[in-house]
Amino acid sequence: MNPIEKLIQIFSNFPGIGPRQARRFVYYLLTRGNGSLGELAKHISELKDDVTICADCMRFFESQNKTNKDSLYRCKICADQTRDNFTLMVVQRDIDLESVEKNGSFNGFYFVLGGGIPILEKEPEKRIRAKELKIFVERKIKKGLKEIILGVNWNPEGENTGDFVEKFLKPITEKNKIKVTHLGKGLSMGTELEYADSETMKNALRNRS
Amino acid sequence: MNPIEKLIQIFSNFPGIGPRQARRFVYYLLTRGNGSLGELAKHISELKDDVTICADCMRFFESQNKTNKDSLYRCKICADQTRDNFTLMVVQRDIDLESVEKNGSFNGFYFVLGGGIPILEKEPEKRIRAKELKIFVERKIKKGLKEIILGVNWNPEGENTGDFVEKFLKPITEKNKIKVTHLGKGLSMGTELEYADSETMKNALRNRS
Amino acid sequence: MNPIEKLIQIFSNFPGIGPRQARRFVYYLLTRGNGSLGELAKHISELKDDVTICADCMRFFESQNKTNKDSLYRCKICADQTRDNFTLMVVQRDIDLESVEKNGSFNGFYFVLGGGIPILEKEPEKRIRAKELKIFVERKIKKGLKEIILGVNWNPEGENTGDFVEKFLKPITEKNKIKVTHLGKGLSMGTELEYADSETMKNALRNRS
Amino acid sequence: MNPIEKLIQIFSNFPGIGPRQARRFVYYLLTRGNGSLGELAKHISELKDDVTICADCMRFFESQNKTNKDSLYRCKICADQTRDNFTLMVVQRDIDLESVEKNGSFNGFYFVLGGGIPILEKEPEKRIRAKELKIFVERKIKKGLKEIILGVNWNPEGENTGDFVEKFLKPITEKNKIKVTHLGKGLSMGTELEYADSETMKNALRNRS
Repeated sequence: MNPIEKLIQIFSNFPGIGPRQARRFVYYLLTRGNGSLGELAKHISELKDDVTICADCMRFFESQNKTNKDSLYRCKICADQTRDNFTLMVVQRDIDLESVEKNGSFNGFYFVLGGGIPILEKEPEKRIRAKELKIFVERKIKKGLKEIILGVNWNPEGENTGDFVEKFLKPITEKNKIKVTHLGKGLSMGTELEYADSETMKNALRNRS
Repeated sequence: MNPIEKLIQIFSNFPGIGPRQARRFVYYLLTRGNGSLGELAKHISELKDDVTICADCMRFFESQNKTNKDSLYRCKICADQTRDNFTLMVVQRDIDLESVEKNGSFNGFYFVLGGGIPILEKEPEKRIRAKELKIFVERKIKKGLKEIILGVNWNPEGENTGDFVEKFLKPITEKNKIKVTHLGKGLSMGTELEYADSETMKNALRNRS
Repeated sequence: MNPIEKLIQIFSNFPGIGPRQARRFVYYLLTRGNGSLGELAKHISELKDDVTICADCMRFFESQNKTNKDSLYRCKICADQTRDNFTLMVVQRDIDLESVEKNGSFNGFYFVLGGGIPILEKEPEKRIRAKELKIFVERKIKKGLKEIILGVNWNPEGENTGDFVEKFLKPITEKNKIKVTHLGKGLSMGTELEYADSETMKNALRNRS
Repeated sequence: MNPIEKLIQIFSNFPGIGPRQARRFVYYLLTRGNGSLGELAKHISELKDDVTICADCMRFFESQNKTNKDSLYRCKICADQTRDNFTLMVVQRDIDLESVEKNGSFNGFYFVLGGGIPILEKEPEKRIRAKELKIFVERKIKKGLKEIILGVNWNPEGENTGDFVEKFLKPITEKNKIKVTHLGKGLSMGTELEYADSETMKNALRNRS
């Protein structure tokens, strides 16, 4: 296959990109100078050189400060002494962590599962960082962990993932009296009762306060 | 103005209808026989003859059974002896009541405010059935009312309406220890953390359980 | 069925209206005073009293001027002496006529078929005003008609309608050397070649000039 | 700036990609193995090695066959002896050429301007391959060129580009009696008269046949 078709194929696997837009990407690149192509190539091939997986939350991060040894294996958040050791939010993907963190209303720590568990998955523990989570939770318990928040999407895969994590951690959480909580469900901003779907309405009623 | 233009103008005031669709309505009617036009006209002019405002919840309903005097001034729901007297949900419009009722997860009674209160409204009590609500709540208290649920939309007008109702009823609710609750806010079905707006996320965290 | 449900059912048959919006219409009407309901009813029932079908183009119109006898059976356009007698545009519905007329670039006369002919229709001539068209064309020929423009939508029903009309009129048009033309097909305003569908592109090429 | 942010920035410049999706791209890449990252990088940096600009139509193409010298500087289409030498279509971008070619109804040759000329552009000839076009047209004339089709988008930039090309080539086209044509304008497939914009309708009428 020629380089153009090959690249179209690769770009077509990018999240949310179809063949047509993939083709436009390639044409866009063809109009760039060799310099910027080289630069892009360099950044892609080196992407993971400076990017480490945080030894705590398992998210991707860039080792900012080579002199500060700690920042080589733990991300900014996990290295932050001022954060609340009592709560840990388990999320599916890096981008969920960022979106919660950007929100600013959570001050505990995170753990990134690295994905979700589809319904009927035979080997769920292989789909996410189950063992790593267990180890991390055990370490956090020593530091006073009191609550684990299941920060999963409200869709079948997300709920399935949350259920699995809850069951998977049960032995530790029960033994150590750790509360496992779910994000609140109900009306999202902008929802009008008239258009609220039945599940959302049920939860809005159940979770009234 | 000629009948066609007049009707277009009237239909343009229907909720969600612009001049173009209003015009299509008129052309559609022009293709109907005089019989069906007459029928439609009859139903419209008689619409309110058989439709009463429920003496309790203030919703529109049709007096089903002329022999049953009760059904002449109270709607099916309000006349239903089996419903829970402890909870009352205050909604903005008839259609909200129907959507909650269709959901089936609420078994208390309703009250329809008949609208919402826009931000900065000078005379809020004139925008909704404030006095009627007060009277109804006082009657319900005698029957054991324990909780008033503010079933308002999550948008500025809805929240403004809820705040007003809460303040407006405070004297009675405090005196009688009636709990005033709000529908749960948080993730709606289908929400992915990545795309949750900041207000929804805040509430999903605050209302975790 | 009670008046509310009955009206919801009727409104659900309005073009482009589903049950949910039909219900909102009824609730909207319920909030109107009996006065405006009566007015609406009156306009609907009288809609066809002042509205006549033009004896020429067959469109609906309102007899503006009772004193001017001509305006009682012919619409403004058909009564307009200054328009071009050589061209006649055959359209499917009143609304098509209006949209072409609003455009202002056509100065001939119109004929409204009153609908379209679905593919595989057994009795096409019953679906549209075929006989009336023939008679009108014959009258127009005496006034010097030279061209019939098939002003149909570019979709299967529209093309089928155009084909039928063309075949149906062939005896007269051939005998009297009347040109039968189709609206130009090609790029519509805003079309980018990249996204032009194959049929449009074919025509844009064939009809280049 | 760290590699992640740098890449997000670069991807944000891809056509149709915003910062949020750019970020998702990077996270997607972070989950790939170093192998596939290397492969992608390689394809990007080598993209232009095997890709040449066709000496005739100026489109990008891959020199398929090193042994066949001709295929080293002319693309498949331009090297195709069986195509029609009388017509040349001038398009703005490679992707337009592909979309016309895929359509299959054009059998002449192409020329890719490499872009469009925005309204009020001071130095239009610098925005597109004006000189190259002139030279190419002169060569094609020797081979019997009879018509130049302006295959531009129907939007302000496209029309401006077409007008410039037409004026720019006038000396040659007039001298050699080359017809300059525009793609047909009118109803696109699916258009209903009721919704046709005024410009499209004007052209549909003017270009009727």
